[in-house]
Amino acid sequence: MALYVQKYGGTSVGTVERIQAVAEKIKRFRDQGHDIVVVVSAMSGETNRLIGLAKEIQETPDPREYDVLVSTGEQVTISLLSMALKSLGLDARSYTGAQVRIKTDSSHTKARIEDIQTDLMRQDLGAGRVVVVAGFQGMDDDGNITTLGRGGSDTTGVALAAALKADECQIYTDVDGVYTTDPRVVERAQRLDKITFEEMLEMASLGSKVLQIRSVEFAGKYKVPLRVLSSFQDGGGTLISTEEEDTVEKPIISGIAFNRDEAKLTLLGVPDLPGVASRILAPVSDANIEVDMIVQNVAADQTTDFTFTVHRNDYDKAFAILKEINAMLGGRECVGDNKIAKVSIVGVGMRSHAGVASKMFTTLADENINIQMISTSEIKVSVVMSEKYMELAVRALHSAFDLDKSDTVTG
Amino acid sequence: MALYVQKYGGTSVGTVERIQAVAEKIKRFRDQGHDIVVVVSAMSGETNRLIGLAKEIQETPDPREYDVLVSTGEQVTISLLSMALKSLGLDARSYTGAQVRIKTDSSHTKARIEDIQTDLMRQDLGAGRVVVVAGFQGMDDDGNITTLGRGGSDTTGVALAAALKADECQIYTDVDGVYTTDPRVVERAQRLDKITFEEMLEMASLGSKVLQIRSVEFAGKYKVPLRVLSSFQDGGGTLISTEEEDTVEKPIISGIAFNRDEAKLTLLGVPDLPGVASRILAPVSDANIEVDMIVQNVAADQTTDFTFTVHRNDYDKAFAILKEINAMLGGRECVGDNKIAKVSIVGVGMRSHAGVASKMFTTLADENINIQMISTSEIKVSVVMSEKYMELAVRALHSAFDLDKSDTVTG
Repeated sequence: MALYVQKYGGTSVGTVERIQAVAEKIKRFRDQGHDIVVVVSAMSGETNRLIGLAKEIQETPDPREYDVLVSTGEQVTISLLSMALKSLGLDARSYTGAQVRIKTDSSHTKARIEDIQTDLMRQDLGAGRVVVVAGFQGMDDDGNITTLGRGGSDTTGVALAAALKADECQIYTDVDGVYTTDPRVVERAQRLDKITFEEMLEMASLGSKVLQIRSVEFAGKYKVPLRVLSSFQDGGGTLISTEEEDTVEKPIISGIAFNRDEAKLTLLGVPDLPGVASRILAPVSDANIEVDMIVQNVAADQTTDFTFTVHRNDYDKAFAILKEINAMLGGRECVGDNKIAKVSIVGVGMRSHAGVASKMFTTLADENINIQMISTSEIKVSVVMSEKYMELAVRALHSAFDLDKSDTVTG
Repeated sequence: MALYVQKYGGTSVGTVERIQAVAEKIKRFRDQGHDIVVVVSAMSGETNRLIGLAKEIQETPDPREYDVLVSTGEQVTISLLSMALKSLGLDARSYTGAQVRIKTDSSHTKARIEDIQTDLMRQDLGAGRVVVVAGFQGMDDDGNITTLGRGGSDTTGVALAAALKADECQIYTDVDGVYTTDPRVVERAQRLDKITFEEMLEMASLGSKVLQIRSVEFAGKYKVPLRVLSSFQDGGGTLISTEEEDTVEKPIISGIAFNRDEAKLTLLGVPDLPGVASRILAPVSDANIEVDMIVQNVAADQTTDFTFTVHRNDYDKAFAILKEINAMLGGRECVGDNKIAKVSIVGVGMRSHAGVASKMFTTLADENINIQMISTSEIKVSVVMSEKYMELAVRALHSAFDLDKSDTVTG
């Protein structure tokens, strides 16, 4: 008998029929004796409909009123799901973020959860009720309705699971788990049964967008076991949890992530002086351009080359800024390329295994793929290459690190 | 500089454009220096859409969850109207029923307001803000969302006006005031500048459905001056208030109300014994059938005839019940008619004027209209007649009591 927090996204509750299917899924868990707290998103399309109304009135809607508006989307879903549960003979009770007292700061449209009171939920669970909570929303100290920003329902689920010390936070979505890489690129990509929080963070931020990054960070911080499952098909999904005691079978690499939304920019021959990096990046950051990789190699003859990557949409803007900076700093030249891709291998196993990076570089060399940039972290090696090699690189690495699904059909 | 509570119904806020028009109307009041608290309904059609979703899941939706669901309708409107006010440069703040602390009892879908805390609203008004409140909803002692039932936004407006001791509660709707009778029946019907609460109650319950009865009762009880105005055209509307000092010009009759939704049922020759009336009506009431008029005349030879009217939709059901009652009581016969209409003259003036009823009966006799039943109250005389004479009767009475608009065109 466990306590599960289950989160169902907008697609999973997109129609009345799907809401009824979710209710039946919950009933199966209840029949097994488990306690269930459900977190739901707005029905798919609803949030966009509401935002559309707001934008007809204000191009940039007032943030406080925006939150009052869009929070109605989840409120509709909690009531409908509670009705569906009741029609199956289960006792259920719905709560808005404010009602269940999810306290947040006052940053409208992107609030952060500060505290959750669990007494009401515990009382309901004790009385045998399913508790249905509106995701994505809360209330600040003054009683104003706040929202956590788009996709924030995952965070609500994890935060509730942490506050209730739930056995698992289950995120139901339209994929059946986390894969070794995108199955659209590598046919033999496999679903991972388990992955660590750190690996998941590297996978997510690198483009395998299954879960909201913030919710994974949150789950890792509070050590809430997180499971990604499909709303539409059965299966165990992927469990995201803290690293266990070393197991012999632990694979070195858990997955291959990739991203073709980036562009790189380089300042050639800038004076190698203290403070140069910040003088280059400050104006970029001031223009609200997010920088991903930054690479600077050792200096030769008092000058250095400085490279960074940005989202492809920001390339032109960043290039213009960089030209001004170059003039100021007296650099030799600005160059850039927006036809690049980033490919990364991710795995906690690489911490204790030498040679992972070298195996990666050899694999790419064998395919005649030229590496333009390299960047590494504890559990990740990323390389930038010409965009046209991306799929080839991902497939080659997937094979080389033994991630390919075997041909044998089980069953 | 007055404090007005203004209520805008679903048609008045039915589209983004109309919400913007309401904001502009409010701005004109603010520009004149008035303080404004606005109460809004859901955008027209929205409540029905939400109820439709609920009924796909539960034929009789769970009342608590029903309230959670439909209360989102007004929540959408308050946020959009606040945005529209802000885009005109006014400061505004929206509140749900729960946020502004409209405390109700726990009767979901038909809750009654018990208490309203005004501190938040007063603080906002003091800071020069327009306060925008969701109509139709509140919160019970346990923090559950409640609704006052359909049309309850009028009641919210009056309750807020009473709690804030507002100078006037203005109900904006799609008609420009209360008329002497339905202008579709009598072309020369006139808008009344003033009417008393009691007259309005008799007019409303008799079919001139401009305002929710409960809100008029409420306004009368707390002596809140109530004004009905059009959202779409300028004009002073109709002021509903307590009766003033006798004025010479006070007309005897304020209006002619009518209703063709009724059916009458009669038990002939029932024993004239104590308790007969309740033995007849108790089973009807137990079947949730509402009874309007009840007429019993003096007994002749130990038996009496007992007649009452019900809504036409309940006629068959009531007739079946009546037959059983008749068998039990040993009455002579049951008869009924669902082709009837009720026509009433209403006016506080008739209290001090003899002869009003007789003038009514003479007028109808002059038109050869047979009166089937008569019922009177302090400020009303109602007669039941064959449905086919209804329009003729209303027109004749409208003329006879000098309510016709003169031909002279002003301006």
